[in-house]
Amino acid sequence: MANRLKPLIHPASVDLSDPAATTESPLEGKEAEARLVQIRARIEALQLALGAEQTRALLVVLQGRDASGKDGVVKKVFGDLNPTYCQVTAFKQPTPLELRHDFLWRAHQAVPAAGMIGIFNRSHYEDVLAVRVHSLVPESLWRLRYQHINDFERMLTDHGVTILKFMVHISREEQRQQLEERLEDPNKNWKFAASDLKERARWDDYTQAYHEMFLRTSTEWAPWYLVPGDKKTARNLLIGETVLATLERMDPKFPPGDPSVMALRGKIV
Amino acid sequence: MANRLKPLIHPASVDLSDPAATTESPLEGKEAEARLVQIRARIEALQLALGAEQTRALLVVLQGRDASGKDGVVKKVFGDLNPTYCQVTAFKQPTPLELRHDFLWRAHQAVPAAGMIGIFNRSHYEDVLAVRVHSLVPESLWRLRYQHINDFERMLTDHGVTILKFMVHISREEQRQQLEERLEDPNKNWKFAASDLKERARWDDYTQAYHEMFLRTSTEWAPWYLVPGDKKTARNLLIGETVLATLERMDPKFPPGDPSVMALRGKIV
Repeated sequence: MANRLKPLIHPASVDLSDPAATTESPLEGKEAEARLVQIRARIEALQLALGAEQTRALLVVLQGRDASGKDGVVKKVFGDLNPTYCQVTAFKQPTPLELRHDFLWRAHQAVPAAGMIGIFNRSHYEDVLAVRVHSLVPESLWRLRYQHINDFERMLTDHGVTILKFMVHISREEQRQQLEERLEDPNKNWKFAASDLKERARWDDYTQAYHEMFLRTSTEWAPWYLVPGDKKTARNLLIGETVLATLERMDPKFPPGDPSVMALRGKIV
Repeated sequence: MANRLKPLIHPASVDLSDPAATTESPLEGKEAEARLVQIRARIEALQLALGAEQTRALLVVLQGRDASGKDGVVKKVFGDLNPTYCQVTAFKQPTPLELRHDFLWRAHQAVPAAGMIGIFNRSHYEDVLAVRVHSLVPESLWRLRYQHINDFERMLTDHGVTILKFMVHISREEQRQQLEERLEDPNKNWKFAASDLKERARWDDYTQAYHEMFLRTSTEWAPWYLVPGDKKTARNLLIGETVLATLERMDPKFPPGDPSVMALRGKIV
């Protein structure tokens, strides 16, 4: 099955202007939905072997502006995973205790153990995004974090954690529609915070922060994938394809049984 | 929708002899499967509101002998949950650090936060089951733990954690078949440990330990449910019904939007 998202590896520049332009046109409609169902089933099957093997982990980092669909990706791409071997961490405003630690402390605690698929909904990248846009630490510090992040992610990779980083890239108009949708749908009202509009007002500052994030942290060991986010099914399909291709490359195997135990076959009383 | 499992509340005695006798005969076959699909969908919908509300949590404790189907329950009853608001903790042999703490320390860390459904696959009850059977601590200590557990669970309940405890009750013959199945199926060989047979040899000691567990820890605030486990679909259906009825009683609601934000409807630029 083709995987159409390409990793960004040490890019010289990334086009963040128009989400529609960042990849070839993917499937839509019923065909895409059917394909996503297939992909989810195959991801689930490989996850079971990964969970049984317990020697390696997969970490999926999801970034994107407010209302870009990160929650939707968790549900629509990873909703079939066996809950035993899946762990989602939503990174919110840091707590007072977290702020008394370095910025990687809380991320490190949430890294998936061998056998697990871990999903970061937002991540340590907020510390070079929101933190940069709002000057929450001095530039002299946040600038150092690109290197800290690369070093941290390389260490994890060296210890058997495969890292996939997706930035769900939506247009300004799409964000407007999604935010309006949160006001229209009573089940989504609670998701809308007054601060969301303050963030929206800093659109261009975030674009700049994301751009530099791509340039500085898209490494060969932990590349970024830029995902066009305005069309949900296409977005889910592109991410699903990449996750599946990665798990297929990892090729986890169910461990063999203990020989002394296997000898008991047919003899249990 | 009927909920046929009845909570055990301060029972004077529990019949652990024949799993088939512990509840009325539930649905089987296609009708049962279809009903489980419905139940899963309704659990998922209620879970979303619980996750949005973020004031209360649900803790599901699964206990049962080896190969009784606890992993199957996680997948078949809770497999549709939104991973963002679901957290499974599998309690294994305690680590050296865990053994340097009281027995509730690791359980407490794994308690679901408000908004979450937490599932314990085995739990602090191992500390009055395996620990008792193998005399891992003196009887004078494990006897105190019934009260410790009741006090702990009452404290959690007082803080908004609803607790459901299921013991999946299989027959000795069903365990034999399930263990043989693990030797037959190459994808399950890894699940069979030599120690499983040592545990099986202590069948009656475990029965006694389970029996006293029911008598001492089935409280009005955290009752046990005895689930006949030899028929998988029936087992899943009975647990699913009870989880759904509990969530319906909790009746979580999506929170209203912030009025200052709701006033922006149709006006986002």
